[in-house]
Amino acid sequence: MNEKLSQQVKVYVIACSGPADLNGVRMLVDKNELNPNEIVAVMGKTEGNGGVNDFARDLAVKSWCTFLCAYFNCSPESVLERVALVMSGGTEGVLSPHFTVFTRSFIPFLSSSEKGLVIGISHTKKFLPEEIGTMAQVLETAKAVKLAMQDAGLNNSDDIHLVQVKCPLLTNEKINNLLIRGAMAVTQDTYKSMAYSRAASALGVAIALGDARQNEIDNSTILSDFNKYSGCASISAGIEVDNNVVIVFGNLVGSSSPYFISHTIMHDSIDIKSVLEMFSNDFGLDLLKSYSVISDRLVNIFVKAEASPDGLIRGERHTMLTDSDVTSTRHARAAVGGVLAALTGKTTLYVSGGAEHQGPSGGGTCAAIIKRK
Amino acid sequence: MNEKLSQQVKVYVIACSGPADLNGVRMLVDKNELNPNEIVAVMGKTEGNGGVNDFARDLAVKSWCTFLCAYFNCSPESVLERVALVMSGGTEGVLSPHFTVFTRSFIPFLSSSEKGLVIGISHTKKFLPEEIGTMAQVLETAKAVKLAMQDAGLNNSDDIHLVQVKCPLLTNEKINNLLIRGAMAVTQDTYKSMAYSRAASALGVAIALGDARQNEIDNSTILSDFNKYSGCASISAGIEVDNNVVIVFGNLVGSSSPYFISHTIMHDSIDIKSVLEMFSNDFGLDLLKSYSVISDRLVNIFVKAEASPDGLIRGERHTMLTDSDVTSTRHARAAVGGVLAALTGKTTLYVSGGAEHQGPSGGGTCAAIIKRK
Amino acid sequence: MNEKLSQQVKVYVIACSGPADLNGVRMLVDKNELNPNEIVAVMGKTEGNGGVNDFARDLAVKSWCTFLCAYFNCSPESVLERVALVMSGGTEGVLSPHFTVFTRSFIPFLSSSEKGLVIGISHTKKFLPEEIGTMAQVLETAKAVKLAMQDAGLNNSDDIHLVQVKCPLLTNEKINNLLIRGAMAVTQDTYKSMAYSRAASALGVAIALGDARQNEIDNSTILSDFNKYSGCASISAGIEVDNNVVIVFGNLVGSSSPYFISHTIMHDSIDIKSVLEMFSNDFGLDLLKSYSVISDRLVNIFVKAEASPDGLIRGERHTMLTDSDVTSTRHARAAVGGVLAALTGKTTLYVSGGAEHQGPSGGGTCAAIIKRK
Amino acid sequence: MNEKLSQQVKVYVIACSGPADLNGVRMLVDKNELNPNEIVAVMGKTEGNGGVNDFARDLAVKSWCTFLCAYFNCSPESVLERVALVMSGGTEGVLSPHFTVFTRSFIPFLSSSEKGLVIGISHTKKFLPEEIGTMAQVLETAKAVKLAMQDAGLNNSDDIHLVQVKCPLLTNEKINNLLIRGAMAVTQDTYKSMAYSRAASALGVAIALGDARQNEIDNSTILSDFNKYSGCASISAGIEVDNNVVIVFGNLVGSSSPYFISHTIMHDSIDIKSVLEMFSNDFGLDLLKSYSVISDRLVNIFVKAEASPDGLIRGERHTMLTDSDVTSTRHARAAVGGVLAALTGKTTLYVSGGAEHQGPSGGGTCAAIIKRK
Repeated sequence: MNEKLSQQVKVYVIACSGPADLNGVRMLVDKNELNPNEIVAVMGKTEGNGGVNDFARDLAVKSWCTFLCAYFNCSPESVLERVALVMSGGTEGVLSPHFTVFTRSFIPFLSSSEKGLVIGISHTKKFLPEEIGTMAQVLETAKAVKLAMQDAGLNNSDDIHLVQVKCPLLTNEKINNLLIRGAMAVTQDTYKSMAYSRAASALGVAIALGDARQNEIDNSTILSDFNKYSGCASISAGIEVDNNVVIVFGNLVGSSSPYFISHTIMHDSIDIKSVLEMFSNDFGLDLLKSYSVISDRLVNIFVKAEASPDGLIRGERHTMLTDSDVTSTRHARAAVGGVLAALTGKTTLYVSGGAEHQGPSGGGTCAAIIKRK
Repeated sequence: MNEKLSQQVKVYVIACSGPADLNGVRMLVDKNELNPNEIVAVMGKTEGNGGVNDFARDLAVKSWCTFLCAYFNCSPESVLERVALVMSGGTEGVLSPHFTVFTRSFIPFLSSSEKGLVIGISHTKKFLPEEIGTMAQVLETAKAVKLAMQDAGLNNSDDIHLVQVKCPLLTNEKINNLLIRGAMAVTQDTYKSMAYSRAASALGVAIALGDARQNEIDNSTILSDFNKYSGCASISAGIEVDNNVVIVFGNLVGSSSPYFISHTIMHDSIDIKSVLEMFSNDFGLDLLKSYSVISDRLVNIFVKAEASPDGLIRGERHTMLTDSDVTSTRHARAAVGGVLAALTGKTTLYVSGGAEHQGPSGGGTCAAIIKRK
Repeated sequence: MNEKLSQQVKVYVIACSGPADLNGVRMLVDKNELNPNEIVAVMGKTEGNGGVNDFARDLAVKSWCTFLCAYFNCSPESVLERVALVMSGGTEGVLSPHFTVFTRSFIPFLSSSEKGLVIGISHTKKFLPEEIGTMAQVLETAKAVKLAMQDAGLNNSDDIHLVQVKCPLLTNEKINNLLIRGAMAVTQDTYKSMAYSRAASALGVAIALGDARQNEIDNSTILSDFNKYSGCASISAGIEVDNNVVIVFGNLVGSSSPYFISHTIMHDSIDIKSVLEMFSNDFGLDLLKSYSVISDRLVNIFVKAEASPDGLIRGERHTMLTDSDVTSTRHARAAVGGVLAALTGKTTLYVSGGAEHQGPSGGGTCAAIIKRK
Repeated sequence: MNEKLSQQVKVYVIACSGPADLNGVRMLVDKNELNPNEIVAVMGKTEGNGGVNDFARDLAVKSWCTFLCAYFNCSPESVLERVALVMSGGTEGVLSPHFTVFTRSFIPFLSSSEKGLVIGISHTKKFLPEEIGTMAQVLETAKAVKLAMQDAGLNNSDDIHLVQVKCPLLTNEKINNLLIRGAMAVTQDTYKSMAYSRAASALGVAIALGDARQNEIDNSTILSDFNKYSGCASISAGIEVDNNVVIVFGNLVGSSSPYFISHTIMHDSIDIKSVLEMFSNDFGLDLLKSYSVISDRLVNIFVKAEASPDGLIRGERHTMLTDSDVTSTRHARAAVGGVLAALTGKTTLYVSGGAEHQGPSGGGTCAAIIKRK
């Protein structure tokens, strides 16, 4: 961050009537409340199964590209080089589809000792199919996180509260191409490849933030040693990208953003104790006491949800992993979405499925952005 | 209830490894902790889709019949005349499959001014397919509720906190048979017939308990005027019954049961305010404060969940009704299951889908049984 | 058709790696084999559930608009006014996602007594939500079919072999808007609304082609009297349109198209007798005898598939209508897709689900386009 | 087979209205057309998802045990020692749920030079969870096939046309137990464990029949080298067994059975050429020519279906392996069920999903039993 200028991040949560609906965005732009040229990142929750064949994510990305290219005066595809578009599929249960839009501008520095939100973005190279879910993806992600930190002006990982990554998956086409070349995919199961890609990306975040040491991690760690994780990582896999897109969120003194971010770790899908404590300790807010205050000041929660891999929660059996009709990520989003919507009275929440190495096994990263008083 | 004898209801929540697994039950019987001859009702949550082709419910019913007929010295089918077996399909998200077993015995009266749990059961006649979802089912259910109240010793509807009903649905076979006879089904959509059957049964409960007047209700009310409802009704439809099975739960002075029941109404899927108040006001228990006390004293929660029919929750869009992959009842159970598991720290909860006329539109009946101190 | 000019329709079947993949199209354009300015219609089979929340259709439509607007020198949305884009969701089983692209040009008339393929397109007005599934939609569709016939140069309905319609569905949003205005939707079940919209559109086709008389049809006919149908109608519902898009296909003397179309009616999902006869009688081709000839000359089959509403096929029970996990249209496409792929050795077939009033109950319209010798 | 006695197998295909419906069976018994004491095997197609949590299979097994134990004068569980009960889940598309019941008796030998159907059954030991999907299961299955051949009187593998196996799968409970003991499961994905168990069982059949040599096969072959297979193997996995149940079918001179069996290999899901040739060459029957003859003489077809692992069929992409809503086995059964129902005019067919090492990759074993003239 420039010494003389102060980073100002603004955050907008905008409901949509479908993955392609940007009318809400357009309205804010028309009213001069949102400057499209300042948009640096969009994190969307789109309705869909959140699995391999969820094209709602791609539809949202394409709609944003078409919308923004007119302002940026570039091709639709080139929008992706400038804005981090992360769409997470699946709004099961009470969750409501929406976009969280982040703008960034630099304004003259106003002296203040309080910390405020900053944001940085970066991209990795495009991955070869055989790199997905391996150390190659781990290390490239770690590098990209460092770049995004630099972009945000963040040097200290203690100031970082959320690292959001969008990562690719394996399709049958990619797997066949790779087999023809004599290469090996980490898995030939396309749905499972989403878990591998998320896992490798999360371990990359863990290394970059110092949550794990690089020499402790190799290919055998991935999707296996769940004691290695980052409590700041939130990873979404999707068919619509070939590289990793990284967004880093933190707080810095000198930021002019009217927002503040913090995070905690949910130790399982129903761990509300940790969430209540984060709101109380970090924000001075008492959840359950006053929905109206929360409703006013809470911008969004970003949380990862998963079915605990051992098939148990609080010692009892769950059935998310033995359901051959509905994938476990859909189950997990629905449950955790219910939990957090009940606590906050809000349903436009970013609840994302598949929390491998993103928080402890069965739990997940949980970050929240609030308006500063 | 006999003046000289006191009703004693015992309640057992028993986990299972599948719909046919009664090993946990067998163990309690072997240890003389559970007397199978005293069992009057079983309410199971079985894993499955909870829809038309959910045979896990039937498998559980048949397993219970096979198990109990040896003790009752009768045929497996005859068990159904003596015990109310209500299986509710679907343990989405964090919910855990289990059986809640109710025994009833009559012991010498011990003078006490405190109220304790009582239970009564009854059955309607078998319904013709054309009666399902119509006033015929409404009125027969109302009669059966009265009979179950009598069986329980309950005269005052203020003492009643839960009326659980198991009701039939329409299969293509039933619909065809009926069309051949020139009769009309209320719907030819088998999944929708579950909603009709639940709706008519719930309105029957409403009439019996005085929540609605009989002359206010006709066929056009069913699945249409959701202002008519009972906040005590909990209805599950299933392919495994042809009649309605009714269980009434309440509290009475003179009961020797070590349990107490109360209920509230959830106004939407994330209405935890009502639940917190019930625990605080009716049980003197502060949820969120001490999981260990709750875990010890809370036996089970019985709650109905549904996707609000207008597609909105707290003013935001939900996608449960436009999901062509996963039925709305599965979504709703997953979400509400998450909410209540988070509040109580328990996942062996009776969360049942489809709350038509069982609580207000979008919300549902919520009852809880606790151990008396 | 102009007397001095001859209509020339060309047809291209182009595989895709996803709903947004137009690389195959681009390649043909680059090689000057396909003139994008001559495209009048695209009928796509996109992967997805084919239900309410199938956004793959919309993604394909938007991708085509973005692609074509550069050639047409118009906005992406305006492409829809010039080209009939009909995307049908669901490529279950062996079916393969693809686009069938139709171009039309007019060339100097070459005297010939043989008939060749002609095509015409039209649109209805945008429907109010309350009009969907009612006589309003029936009559507007009938009018639009007449317009499309005129556009094709077809006066005689005997020359018409396929009328493809894309029609809207009801979302919760549309239903709520309508309820607020005091209007009534034909159904509040969004998935069911697809059936209503297809049914009304099919009856409109039936009236236009003389398969049914207008005075025989009223609102009570829709989704009820399945003896009223058109054997040429093929209707797909989708969230991506608000009006009906109509494409009429037929044969005319004077056409210079190197293609010919015919049709038959499948009387149930496994009625291969009718298909074999069409190929033998109308095309002089013996299916099953030589895949290489068929593979060379068969362009595509356009067929409607449905679960027979009485739950029976050839007197035996099917389970498509009682499956609460997978919708009946997905089942039907998978089965009929298998049948026709086996007969033809091709999997890039246009098999579309939901055949209400499109062929007899349980069966469906079946048209095929072949290369003339 | 005893020299003086002749084996007589009878086969009954009996429709059911649900997995627990044995009314059709009971009727045949009451009419003395079926002797329950002679039943040696039942192969059922039950409606369900055919996956891990498909309890329809177990419900059918328990219903058969309850039904037969009265005749056998034994406990329900003991029925399993005497009768091979193989339930295969999933009747997608046009398939109709049914049971194929096999009785066996020995009658005085009637000299005849023609071959007729014989049958033999056997069981393996119960498998440890860590043995499932490994060489341990391969070798035990090979042994059990030899035992079943002996039971049938079959010495020559050329006379064998179908080896049906029911095999166990891994549940989370089994996996946890095994991890606690420090053992390793072949996979921790419960749905994938079905594929491993089928694969190992199929390779066991291949070894027993000489389709593969034991020294060519090790753990690395399983689910990997699909060139190793048996064209006679048909394997179904299910939660309801802990061991492998084996049924061998063949033809022998000296059999008094009024039936004959043959088999072919489908090379992909739409390979009707092979099926037509089997009917023509082995049965002298011309499919497609006369449904009435086929309908009269064809008892059942037993076929394995799978999504080809490379994501392609006839060179075109299929989407069965990238569908996160519906499992690939459901897709494959629906498609192949359509194919064979169209060819035969019958829908009560035994089409089973997951053909790993059961026929070539993407194809599957296909056997048929017909009445002898």
